[in-house]
Amino acid sequence: MAKLRFNISVSLDGYVAGPDQTLEEPLGRGGEDLHEWVVKLRTWREAHGMEGGSDGRDNEAMRDMLHNVGATIMGRGMFGGGSGPWNMDEPWRGWWGTSPPFKHSVFVITHHPREKLTFDNGTSFTFVTDGIRSAYDQAMEAAGGRDVMIGGGADVADQYLAAGLVDEMDLHVVPILLGGGSRLFADAGADMHGLELVRTTPGDGVVHLKFARGV
Amino acid sequence: MAKLRFNISVSLDGYVAGPDQTLEEPLGRGGEDLHEWVVKLRTWREAHGMEGGSDGRDNEAMRDMLHNVGATIMGRGMFGGGSGPWNMDEPWRGWWGTSPPFKHSVFVITHHPREKLTFDNGTSFTFVTDGIRSAYDQAMEAAGGRDVMIGGGADVADQYLAAGLVDEMDLHVVPILLGGGSRLFADAGADMHGLELVRTTPGDGVVHLKFARGV
Repeated sequence: MAKLRFNISVSLDGYVAGPDQTLEEPLGRGGEDLHEWVVKLRTWREAHGMEGGSDGRDNEAMRDMLHNVGATIMGRGMFGGGSGPWNMDEPWRGWWGTSPPFKHSVFVITHHPREKLTFDNGTSFTFVTDGIRSAYDQAMEAAGGRDVMIGGGADVADQYLAAGLVDEMDLHVVPILLGGGSRLFADAGADMHGLELVRTTPGDGVVHLKFARGV
Repeated sequence: MAKLRFNISVSLDGYVAGPDQTLEEPLGRGGEDLHEWVVKLRTWREAHGMEGGSDGRDNEAMRDMLHNVGATIMGRGMFGGGSGPWNMDEPWRGWWGTSPPFKHSVFVITHHPREKLTFDNGTSFTFVTDGIRSAYDQAMEAAGGRDVMIGGGADVADQYLAAGLVDEMDLHVVPILLGGGSRLFADAGADMHGLELVRTTPGDGVVHLKFARGV
């Protein structure tokens, strides 16, 4: 059965972004360090049209995560474009440039309606204004039997976890302290909503913890 | 060279104790779950005079941590007995009963002076009122070339980390959320003070991360 999946990097002290987040530094002070292990991987570089990069266990972990994904859900912040109504005089096409790396349907959760955006490479952005459950249903439909990935941010993932809809979760524990910032799963509280640790994979400057729904 | 070492269990969301800590529930709501992996181990049970328990990688990790320790430093809370002056009319001998499991010199950091306590099994408690550096010096002297362990609580470990005195640290990441409580390294901020991840060991319901001073 198709799954709702999610992965995120978290610091030792439980932060998914550092303190003092700004438009220039959206991940806050030190927050970029959470993703150092990712951006050097071959798979990540390929997906973003770059050559080279490292192979090995982290790259395998990343490839597993990208495998069999048929649609993505993300928050407005992850798509880009502030929090107010869209300015359609100068229609902003998000952070993702002219060739977004998804190559499938992306559902953006927002309070503000907007026409669907379509790209030549198969990526489309559909703007969903009636909540996370609706985005879930639309994404599952679009994925056609493949899995749906929550692309972020952490607040969106948090809402899906709290709603008990997440089937599989990869946490990448990065051995740094951020000392403040955005907390992992602030809404979900103390409840893993049925997810259990099923695998631990030590990597290079990161540890991958895989969680799945208990059987 | 003798090292100052420290180990602690931490939740996925970066807590070392849960919310709503009381005298009856000193680890807060859900906090006991952080130590489930420990209390079932053969090594832990032996140290506390009990038979049985599980072997395997977690037990080895625990045995490594207890190995070559010549003295222990702990906070007043870990020793037990409230936070005010000692009531010597009914002299409280701490949480540790008549046969504390240390069998070496323990240095208790407190604001309130008290005579040294000595037990038949080789354990003694010395009460140190002049700060963490003094406790460090006394413990290193008593350890006679073996290592010194910070027994807790987390606030004491945090102070030693912030002072740059910790040489080796084992973090046991437990795949649960506590949703609130005492933060790992609230004082040390975003600084690992020279400690680097050197080994990751997946265990049974826990992942051991070993940190050591970079060379």
